[in-house]
Amino acid sequence: MCANALVQAGVNVRIIDKRPEGLIAGQADGCQPRTLEILHSYDSTLSEKMFKRGEILHKTTFYNPSPGGGIEKTSSAVSINAPTARWEYSVNLHQGGIEGILLEAMADKGSRVERSTVPTAIEVSQLSEDLQNPTAYVAKVTLKNLEREEDDLEIVHAKFVLGSDGAHSWVRKAFDIAMEGDNTDSIWGVVDMVPDTDFPDFRTKSFVHSKDGTVFIIPRENDMIRLYIQQGPESDVIDSATGRVDKSRTSPEKLIEQGQKILRPYRMENKDGKVAWWTVYVVGQRVAVKYSIDERAFIAGDACHTHSPKAGQGLNASMGDTHNFAWKVAYVLRGWSPLSLLKTYESERRTYAQELIDFDKSFSKLFTDRPRTEVHQNGVTHEQFLGAFKTASGFTSGMAIRYKPSSIVDDTHQSVASNLVVGERMLPYIFIRAASSQPIEIHDMLPADTRFKILVFAGNMADVVDRAKLEALGEELNKPESFMRRYGRSEGGKWQVFDLVCFSAATKDAVSFFDFPEFFRWHWTKALLDDKDMHGRSGGSGYAKFGIDENAGAIVVVRPDGYIGTIAPLEDVAFLNAYFAAFLLH
Amino acid sequence: MCANALVQAGVNVRIIDKRPEGLIAGQADGCQPRTLEILHSYDSTLSEKMFKRGEILHKTTFYNPSPGGGIEKTSSAVSINAPTARWEYSVNLHQGGIEGILLEAMADKGSRVERSTVPTAIEVSQLSEDLQNPTAYVAKVTLKNLEREEDDLEIVHAKFVLGSDGAHSWVRKAFDIAMEGDNTDSIWGVVDMVPDTDFPDFRTKSFVHSKDGTVFIIPRENDMIRLYIQQGPESDVIDSATGRVDKSRTSPEKLIEQGQKILRPYRMENKDGKVAWWTVYVVGQRVAVKYSIDERAFIAGDACHTHSPKAGQGLNASMGDTHNFAWKVAYVLRGWSPLSLLKTYESERRTYAQELIDFDKSFSKLFTDRPRTEVHQNGVTHEQFLGAFKTASGFTSGMAIRYKPSSIVDDTHQSVASNLVVGERMLPYIFIRAASSQPIEIHDMLPADTRFKILVFAGNMADVVDRAKLEALGEELNKPESFMRRYGRSEGGKWQVFDLVCFSAATKDAVSFFDFPEFFRWHWTKALLDDKDMHGRSGGSGYAKFGIDENAGAIVVVRPDGYIGTIAPLEDVAFLNAYFAAFLLH
Repeated sequence: MCANALVQAGVNVRIIDKRPEGLIAGQADGCQPRTLEILHSYDSTLSEKMFKRGEILHKTTFYNPSPGGGIEKTSSAVSINAPTARWEYSVNLHQGGIEGILLEAMADKGSRVERSTVPTAIEVSQLSEDLQNPTAYVAKVTLKNLEREEDDLEIVHAKFVLGSDGAHSWVRKAFDIAMEGDNTDSIWGVVDMVPDTDFPDFRTKSFVHSKDGTVFIIPRENDMIRLYIQQGPESDVIDSATGRVDKSRTSPEKLIEQGQKILRPYRMENKDGKVAWWTVYVVGQRVAVKYSIDERAFIAGDACHTHSPKAGQGLNASMGDTHNFAWKVAYVLRGWSPLSLLKTYESERRTYAQELIDFDKSFSKLFTDRPRTEVHQNGVTHEQFLGAFKTASGFTSGMAIRYKPSSIVDDTHQSVASNLVVGERMLPYIFIRAASSQPIEIHDMLPADTRFKILVFAGNMADVVDRAKLEALGEELNKPESFMRRYGRSEGGKWQVFDLVCFSAATKDAVSFFDFPEFFRWHWTKALLDDKDMHGRSGGSGYAKFGIDENAGAIVVVRPDGYIGTIAPLEDVAFLNAYFAAFLLH
Repeated sequence: MCANALVQAGVNVRIIDKRPEGLIAGQADGCQPRTLEILHSYDSTLSEKMFKRGEILHKTTFYNPSPGGGIEKTSSAVSINAPTARWEYSVNLHQGGIEGILLEAMADKGSRVERSTVPTAIEVSQLSEDLQNPTAYVAKVTLKNLEREEDDLEIVHAKFVLGSDGAHSWVRKAFDIAMEGDNTDSIWGVVDMVPDTDFPDFRTKSFVHSKDGTVFIIPRENDMIRLYIQQGPESDVIDSATGRVDKSRTSPEKLIEQGQKILRPYRMENKDGKVAWWTVYVVGQRVAVKYSIDERAFIAGDACHTHSPKAGQGLNASMGDTHNFAWKVAYVLRGWSPLSLLKTYESERRTYAQELIDFDKSFSKLFTDRPRTEVHQNGVTHEQFLGAFKTASGFTSGMAIRYKPSSIVDDTHQSVASNLVVGERMLPYIFIRAASSQPIEIHDMLPADTRFKILVFAGNMADVVDRAKLEALGEELNKPESFMRRYGRSEGGKWQVFDLVCFSAATKDAVSFFDFPEFFRWHWTKALLDDKDMHGRSGGSGYAKFGIDENAGAIVVVRPDGYIGTIAPLEDVAFLNAYFAAFLLH
């Protein structure tokens, strides 16, 4: 994820991986709505490949103990409840499949993973003149190729290093970064297989609570399902000497047998006897005490945080980490921002990881506790479970991620666009192009191309007052002291740092492209109208949806990662000048 | 188009082209809704690439003479009025771009075009034992590589040959196939360029009728537009000696100048002075008297039919030809069908070409005639023009193509599914999967994979009577004398010739996947429900939309090219047995 983002940004990257081959099955798999949006923002082919290669989950069913013994369906619901999501569902594809999509995108730019390669030593210069110089090669990493001679080592000098090397991160340990938090007593077995079953909901996400334990069924690619099977108190998969899971104490056959017991009276067999992947693990809920060494060496993903997979967050939280990181390091490398910008990687993503673990603690308890039955009157009721499941959707979908005020998040003028929450991702919506009446999803105008998007909601261009205000704004933005000219790095008539899109509240019949002031019609695709498409099927009332007053207007600044950096009144260019001065270099 | 279709079907194809390189600009360009559906049916990446690389046209504007001189906008409308289209718009991309998408798809299967190569001689054996044997190499083609020595020829023996070599087809001439019809006196100049203009609708399809002539503006890829400029009676581009266009008598600059005059008071300059492509042509309206020599050598596309480009049909009619041809020749080559199946290529596509030319005659007259003004009281009114434009949409979109009854089209039981017209393409609509509640566009279950799709509309599976009827149908279809077993060529549990999809009228709450009889749930993706998706946004009432009685049901047979071959009552397997017996081999 990180390597692809940096390669697309033109950064010179070396990416090494211990594995001799890419993953072919199993591991993390659930791509949540926000992650789909993020992948799409790099290139629409990434999300399209996810939809084609993965399994799209639309429905969740809940089974509970039946009074007559066995289990019965209690209810069903949408699999994701996230009304603002562009795609209101998750997509399941094994981790190697997701990595493959990113590797293909990198390969198009001539980049590939160096495999069978591990670091054996790492250090970061502690000279302050080095640390303060973003172009200094402060990190020294010793690499060993596992397929070559023992003493065939390579020394790499790098400006920045990132370890996204998993829960047992070598980089994290090399820098002696502690993990805070604990293991839980929640233990799960996992099996990926093609089922032969009469369980009616074998192709929906199913949460099955029985008197004999809990099973989750997650449909996936190639007709397979994943079974998560709770290991009860009688389980002996923990080696008491080490306190760690000993996989040899169980087997996929044993796990499937446990699942079969829980799923009674339904039948659940392994159709072809093959197991694509399996594992057993103890849920840990931990977060690294810090995410970087002097903003030059970093960790990301499972190296920073672990939690239960119940909410399907691991892969998503990890991809979100480096999506947050990549544009910042690109800005520093290009000399566009000071090194301090990189502090916001830890402040934004570590806070989120802590929130995720807090959420996970309450959420996963619901899965681990026994269901309420006549015998277990203290158990979790289905209503409790369902309620938690619904309220959790904002979190599990990724929609509710909100970065707190910082040097790059300023919510001073939140009220100017009351439904666009500063620090959250920009909402998707459809507007139409003034020149062509083509409907366009605004997310498609916010690619992860490392540019800040300046979205000018200009009021009604058919109104002379609004039009005059916009003319004045154009003049203001075109002054040498404006942030656009000061930090925009114009090249061949195109800003490298900014993209400018203008939205008029007027309809297509009232306003033409040429009614926009020249500054805002620098390209015909960049002048939009808040109106329905030619068939009246999409678009319209976007100002109201975003909570923007048509008479007042608003300027919305969307960061390169799609999150709203700040919002300003139409007249307050000075505010924006100050906002960008905090983290951009002249 | 043809080569890709055949390569995807596993047919051994050689494709030669006189051009040393692929086209890089100009030529035909407008992909109409049905053509987009057809491309999508081969692989969704084909339509996705069209949307990304081309220009999607949503709007048409009409300009007419202004009382005060010059022109003014009279009205605007949707660019395509085709309510049943999956994508209700056209996409403009230069012909080389469209060919490139097909070449990429072929390249994935290891096939490429042999360039700089022309045929110098062609013959088809006239021995009847050869002609009646589909595996005989009856065609002998002599090829010459234009980059090699003059006498470096290659003889190719082929089972079948197709000439899709344009309006001046060498293959057509080699077999002395006559063209019926005439040239018109309508002459047009065409220029592709990036405009510098204040014409408000430079990014919509615009029909401009002025006192000085007619111009059409067609927006296209890379910020370009295409100008079609009518050549008036004063034009001298025709060489009276040859009766053909002499391009040297005009120039893109002259054409643009003519356009500028028509577009006054608006300004229209060539922004960067570059012309991507230009031409001048006389509209011909002709059709070849036959499309094949003994069903072994064929012609397709412009080699068979020419007409005005006003309705944007040329490329679409041509791609439709070989889409119709490819599966038929694949069936014959595989020994699945007798040679006689190939007769339907000419009967279906030549009839369509004649209809197209009849349509073109009336439609293009509207463009050529002068607009009604005070001086020209006999001119075409805007209302006449707009009326014709709207009623033409079914034709121009490709939706109204209807193949007449033949050995492969049988409308005996049309009334059983009154809105699914036998001979027309299957309607798109969204159903949901019984096992997962995933919404699925039925067109996505009708890929151009050379299989006939047997769509069983089974009534309400929750109803014991309907369920019993379906059980009985399953038993009937599973008998040795049924068309499925007789012609299905089952291999590893999968029919090579057929795909079977079952639609129940029941809701997801009333019916589960396991309520379908075993014969119809051979794969979990193939059992569908006529119900809304989990969010209630799509699907539902599909039976009503298709005109199928929930109590009676229907069997709809969709041909490999997406057209409805026949419809049968649920009980009448004998009718289907006879239908397939007419053109499939045991």
